[in-house]
Amino acid sequence: MSWLTAPLHPLNSQARAAAQARQGTLTKPAGSLGMLEEIAIRMAAVQGLEIPKADKSQVVVFAADHGICAQGVSAFPQVVTAEMVRNFSRGGAAVCVLSRQQGAALEVVNVGTVSALENLPGVVDARISNGSADFSQGPALSAPQLAAALQVGKEAAERAAAKGAQIFVAGEMGIGNTSSAAALACVLLNCPVAEMAGRGTGLNDAGLQHKIHVLENALKLHQLHAASEPMAIMQALGGLEIAAIAGAYIRAAQLGLVVLVDGFITTAAALWANAVQPQLKEYLFFAHQSAEGAHGKMLSALNGRPLLQLDMRLGEGSGAALALSILQNACALHADMATFASAGVSEQ
Amino acid sequence: MSWLTAPLHPLNSQARAAAQARQGTLTKPAGSLGMLEEIAIRMAAVQGLEIPKADKSQVVVFAADHGICAQGVSAFPQVVTAEMVRNFSRGGAAVCVLSRQQGAALEVVNVGTVSALENLPGVVDARISNGSADFSQGPALSAPQLAAALQVGKEAAERAAAKGAQIFVAGEMGIGNTSSAAALACVLLNCPVAEMAGRGTGLNDAGLQHKIHVLENALKLHQLHAASEPMAIMQALGGLEIAAIAGAYIRAAQLGLVVLVDGFITTAAALWANAVQPQLKEYLFFAHQSAEGAHGKMLSALNGRPLLQLDMRLGEGSGAALALSILQNACALHADMATFASAGVSEQ
Repeated sequence: MSWLTAPLHPLNSQARAAAQARQGTLTKPAGSLGMLEEIAIRMAAVQGLEIPKADKSQVVVFAADHGICAQGVSAFPQVVTAEMVRNFSRGGAAVCVLSRQQGAALEVVNVGTVSALENLPGVVDARISNGSADFSQGPALSAPQLAAALQVGKEAAERAAAKGAQIFVAGEMGIGNTSSAAALACVLLNCPVAEMAGRGTGLNDAGLQHKIHVLENALKLHQLHAASEPMAIMQALGGLEIAAIAGAYIRAAQLGLVVLVDGFITTAAALWANAVQPQLKEYLFFAHQSAEGAHGKMLSALNGRPLLQLDMRLGEGSGAALALSILQNACALHADMATFASAGVSEQ
Repeated sequence: MSWLTAPLHPLNSQARAAAQARQGTLTKPAGSLGMLEEIAIRMAAVQGLEIPKADKSQVVVFAADHGICAQGVSAFPQVVTAEMVRNFSRGGAAVCVLSRQQGAALEVVNVGTVSALENLPGVVDARISNGSADFSQGPALSAPQLAAALQVGKEAAERAAAKGAQIFVAGEMGIGNTSSAAALACVLLNCPVAEMAGRGTGLNDAGLQHKIHVLENALKLHQLHAASEPMAIMQALGGLEIAAIAGAYIRAAQLGLVVLVDGFITTAAALWANAVQPQLKEYLFFAHQSAEGAHGKMLSALNGRPLLQLDMRLGEGSGAALALSILQNACALHADMATFASAGVSEQ
């Protein structure tokens, strides 16, 4: 597991400066492309290229089940996790449509559905267990399960890099996983459950109150705080897919990939990964502000400003698969706009 | 000019209801795609199709010069209007890159640069005059000039419809045109100049104060208010390209096109057009909230919620050419996602 704390790919300050200078030569008032300029400049630093690339993106959806579902914390039955994996495989889910639309490659990784699944096209079987254990009763993951889940994510990032991807997107599928993500964020941000927890796939008021009650009791059981060992926190509360995503983020940054974080659950993974590697946030872009729970608070903790605010709360990586278009457009502008000199346009 | 008040293409409530019902069958928690669901449903109503289309978009950049530049209200010299038209023609401007990126057709219409331009590929010469007159001294446009500018916009929308476009985007180029747009918005919204006016292409503090002073005096000269005749308001304060855009929006809505409004200047055109045709706002989508002036206040007056908030303030239609990707993705999700029934996914 020493790979987890290995250095991240160095940020290239020369490429950053060159990209910044280039922005100043393009035919537009200085700064008038707003965040699109900042995106291109920061991508340049991560990729070490004055003109960053965004033509190859890899979306990986990590799926797993959650023992906490036994407590009735989700509006959808647990069988939906496996059903949605089949839907991903057939290309019918939102993240599939959005990945196609943005020209991104899509891979699905089964990190631990309750039951083993048949062979499915486009789905990597990396099933570690039949889901995480119910963290209202004890630790969600054993130490070897956590190590294995992180490794699953590491290997997904390595496959993406080997295929030449410049941008890595993780998505998640796992009925019950907003409970795990909210619990992780509560510990890492020292935030009350009532503030952090949301309705997930669509809990009503009573369902939300019950979920808050379950999570509060679970957090009492584990007695964790922001300064606890990250491994202890993830073992206690984590889902297999959330751990895999955290591992993938760290490995992607070690390999110099730009990471585009999706929504509530993936941001919880990023929060944890950033606790392990405090420079990680420099490699992260945040796709959108989810309508789920206190996602905005999680973003602030990572100095993240969301690219989109469209009230999405679907998960799957759908927000990030959509926001890929923003990164692609930012890079296209940076690469293809004329300069004042080349276009013969007068400057200010 | 009777065409201006001819009825808009009827909104199709059956198509709207069918689209709404379809959204409920797609494999996602109800409402979890947020604004993307609303976009598809409203586009369905405008287009009269349960599954709206977004594969053909037309971007038209209207360019003209502004007599108000004589008052020193812009950070860039007036010659930049013509220089940027040449840049559009060669494909080097931001709106060109973004239109290509989204697969939209791009046309440029010269409604009135100070000097006539040579023949330029992709540029329609519809030059009405050598720019608007200085509205700090008198009316910006004569009645025949205003009628001609509205007609230029009408014909651009008709060309777009004839080419099969489903979405119409207007952009603008005109050094000094934030002054005209701010003045129009101040009158139409009964808003103080100091609140509405912004830095345009990059005025410093002193420049902004001067611009505010010039606009305040101009508004005193014209003695207009929100209930004044729309024609009188546009004649007094309007730019040729702003009037053309307003005409194009109205004609596009008469022809059943979805209109995607860009930023500060085009929203001023939309405000005026909506004063002429109060149902127009039902056909409008708003690409982004510009960093210029009190654009947010203009959006609120049109019940508009911006799709993007990226601190853009470039104009040209650049924000809308980028936000086309959001409409395209919303339509792709609506058309291509699997249903619970087809995918065998359990419902809530």
